[in-house]
Amino acid sequence: MIYLDNAATTKPLFDAIKYAERFNEEEFFNPSALYSGGLKNHKEIQIAKDVLLNAISCGKHDVIFTSCGSESNNQAIFGMAKRGVVVTTMGEHSAVYKPFTELKNRGLEVYFAKLDRFGCVDVEDLLNLVSKNNVTFVSVVHVNNETGAINDINAIAEKVKKINKNIIFHSDGVQAFGKIPFRLSENVDLYSVSAHKINALKGTGALFKKKNLTLPPYIFGGGQEGGLRSGTENIFGIKVFEYAVKEKYSNMQNNYQIVTALKQIFVDELDKNLFDVISSESSSPYIVSLSAKGVKGEVVLHMLEEDGIIIGNGSACSSKNRYSRVIEACGYKNNDGIIRVSFSPYLNQDDVKFAAQKINERTQKLQRIMKK
Amino acid sequence: MIYLDNAATTKPLFDAIKYAERFNEEEFFNPSALYSGGLKNHKEIQIAKDVLLNAISCGKHDVIFTSCGSESNNQAIFGMAKRGVVVTTMGEHSAVYKPFTELKNRGLEVYFAKLDRFGCVDVEDLLNLVSKNNVTFVSVVHVNNETGAINDINAIAEKVKKINKNIIFHSDGVQAFGKIPFRLSENVDLYSVSAHKINALKGTGALFKKKNLTLPPYIFGGGQEGGLRSGTENIFGIKVFEYAVKEKYSNMQNNYQIVTALKQIFVDELDKNLFDVISSESSSPYIVSLSAKGVKGEVVLHMLEEDGIIIGNGSACSSKNRYSRVIEACGYKNNDGIIRVSFSPYLNQDDVKFAAQKINERTQKLQRIMKK
Repeated sequence: MIYLDNAATTKPLFDAIKYAERFNEEEFFNPSALYSGGLKNHKEIQIAKDVLLNAISCGKHDVIFTSCGSESNNQAIFGMAKRGVVVTTMGEHSAVYKPFTELKNRGLEVYFAKLDRFGCVDVEDLLNLVSKNNVTFVSVVHVNNETGAINDINAIAEKVKKINKNIIFHSDGVQAFGKIPFRLSENVDLYSVSAHKINALKGTGALFKKKNLTLPPYIFGGGQEGGLRSGTENIFGIKVFEYAVKEKYSNMQNNYQIVTALKQIFVDELDKNLFDVISSESSSPYIVSLSAKGVKGEVVLHMLEEDGIIIGNGSACSSKNRYSRVIEACGYKNNDGIIRVSFSPYLNQDDVKFAAQKINERTQKLQRIMKK
Repeated sequence: MIYLDNAATTKPLFDAIKYAERFNEEEFFNPSALYSGGLKNHKEIQIAKDVLLNAISCGKHDVIFTSCGSESNNQAIFGMAKRGVVVTTMGEHSAVYKPFTELKNRGLEVYFAKLDRFGCVDVEDLLNLVSKNNVTFVSVVHVNNETGAINDINAIAEKVKKINKNIIFHSDGVQAFGKIPFRLSENVDLYSVSAHKINALKGTGALFKKKNLTLPPYIFGGGQEGGLRSGTENIFGIKVFEYAVKEKYSNMQNNYQIVTALKQIFVDELDKNLFDVISSESSSPYIVSLSAKGVKGEVVLHMLEEDGIIIGNGSACSSKNRYSRVIEACGYKNNDGIIRVSFSPYLNQDDVKFAAQKINERTQKLQRIMKK
C-alpha cells in the first residue's frame, strides 16, 4: 500500500506508542489523584506541555490538551467570539467554518474573507473587513487542508492587531503543526493543533493560548487543565503526542526537504494534459491538490485502490459532499474532479513516482471511457 | 500494589488493547475517508455502537461517541437545558454540577435536590421542585461517585415525565455502566458513560440519546457521528471500549457477585470504632465511602501507599478540595476524614482483607498521634 492521504490522518509511530504504553499498563493512574502515581502522571502531562510549547511558542503561550483539533477550534471560537462582528476566511476547515456558521445562527455578524486561486486568504479583503467593522475575533487557517496554501498568520495577526489591538486572533494550525517551520508570535492569541495528523493518535489535540488571555472552559467539570478543560486527562494519548512532537521538531528541516522533494517528483511526473495543479509552488509540500479534467475524483480514488494507492478527494471530513466549498472559493466552480495527494516524510521517492504514474494511467483510461 | 481506586480510573484490559491495536497499525484510516479502509473503519464504529446499545438500551436509543463522560454530560446539559427552570441533585459529579452552575451564571433558574444520608437523591424533594416550577430539564446521577448510592433513575424519570412529559431527563451513568445490572427505559432521554471507568481507555466516552430527540452538536465541524459530534473518530479508543463493554456485560452477574463479596469482606474487616461507613448496604458494591474519626483521609491515603495500597479520598476530580460537597450534602459537615475504597472484579479477597487490616492499622496509629 502506498498511503497518500496523510492530511486526513497518519499512521501512528510505533515508537511513540511503545514510549507511552506504560500509561495503559502499570502507570494507568488518574492524573488528578493525590497518591504518588497520580502526582507523577500529572507531572508527565506538564512535561508534554513543555515539549509542545518549546516546539512553536515564542514563550508567551500556555497550552491545554483537548480531545482533537475540532474541539480546540470550537473552544477558541465559542469561548472568545461572543459579541460584535467576527471574521474568518472561505478557506477554513469545517471545524472552524461550522462554528462560524453557528455564530451566525446565534445572531452574530459573520464575514468570510475571499481566497486567491491557490487557497490563500486575500489579506486585503480580510483587513478591509476588519477595518470597516467593529470586529472582536478573527480566525485564519495556517495551512489550508485542501490546497496546502500557507497563510502568513504572524504577519496577518500583526496587521489585524494594528487595526485594533483588542481583537482576538485565532488560527487553525492542524495542517501546519509538526510540518511547517514556524514560531507563534505574541500576536497569535489562540492556535489549534491535532495529534493524529503528525503520526500520533486520534482523540488528542491541543490549544495554545496567550498566557494573559482569559479563556473560558468549553467542557466544565472536575477542573483539569487548570480549569480550562475538564475530563480525566488522556495521558496515553498526550504522551504519544509528546513523542511525535519531539520527533517532528528534531527532524523538521530534514522532513521538510524530504517532502519537498516528494512533491516535486510527484508534480513532475504528472501528465499536465490530464490535470491542473491547484496548489501553488509555495504551498505546503505536504499537500498537492489536483483538478482532473472530465473525471470524478471519487472514481479515480476507487480505481487507484486496486493498485494499492490511497489518495483523498479533498477534506476527509467533507468527503461526502460532491463539491468542495474551499476549492470553489479558489475559483473552480462545479468541479468534482478534485484529487488530494498528501505526503509524509516516511514515504520513498520510487513509491511516489509510481503513484503519480498510476494516477496518470487510471485517469487517462477513465477519461477515455467518459468521452465515449 | 493493591489498587482500590477503581472509581477514579481502572487499568485497561490487556486483551481489549490487543483487540483494537490494529486500528493504530495497519488499519489507521480516517473513518470518514471514501476508500475501503475508511469505509471499513466507519462500519467498525457502527459495530461498537450496537454493542453499547445492546448492553443497556430498551431499543429506543442511539449512541454517539465522545471524548469522555464529562463531554457527554456537557453536551446533554448545554444542548438541552436552554430555557426555563432546570433541576439536578446535590449528589452530582462535577461534570454535571459545574455545567448547572454555569447555567445559573447564564441566567437560568437552577435547583439542586437534597440527598439522604447515604447519598441518594431525596425523590420527594426532587419531584416537588419539578411540580412547583416550569421545569424543562432534569439530571439525576445514576450511581453516586463518592458514596456509591444508586438512584432508581427509570422510576424517577417516569415520575418526572408524569408531571410533564416534555421534560428532558438526563442521567450521568459513569459509575453505573458496565457495573450495575440495568436497562435504560424510554423515559431516560440522555445517558452519559465513560470508557476508562470500566477498564477501557481514558479519552473515550459515549452519550446515549432517545432516537426521536433533536440533540444539537456541541463540537461543530466535519459532521462525524451523524452530525452530533465532529472530530476524527477515535476508533482505537472506541474499539477498546467496545471490547470492555462486551466483557463487562457478558460477566455482569458474576462480576457483581464477586464485587459484592469483596465489599462485604472489606466492611466486615473494618474496625467500626475507627470508621463510620457512609455507603448503605444497598449502594453499588463497587464503592465504599468511609468517614475516619479524628484523622484526615488524605494522610491515611499517603500512609497506605507505603503498604502498596492505593485508595481514594472522594472524587479524584475534586481531590484538591478539603471538604467534599457531596459528602456534606449527606450530612457530614466539615469532614475531611473521608476515604473512598472502590473495587474491581479482578481483585482477590485476600488482598482486600489485607487492605482493610492495613487501613485499620494505619488509621489507628494516626489517631493516636493526633490525640497526643
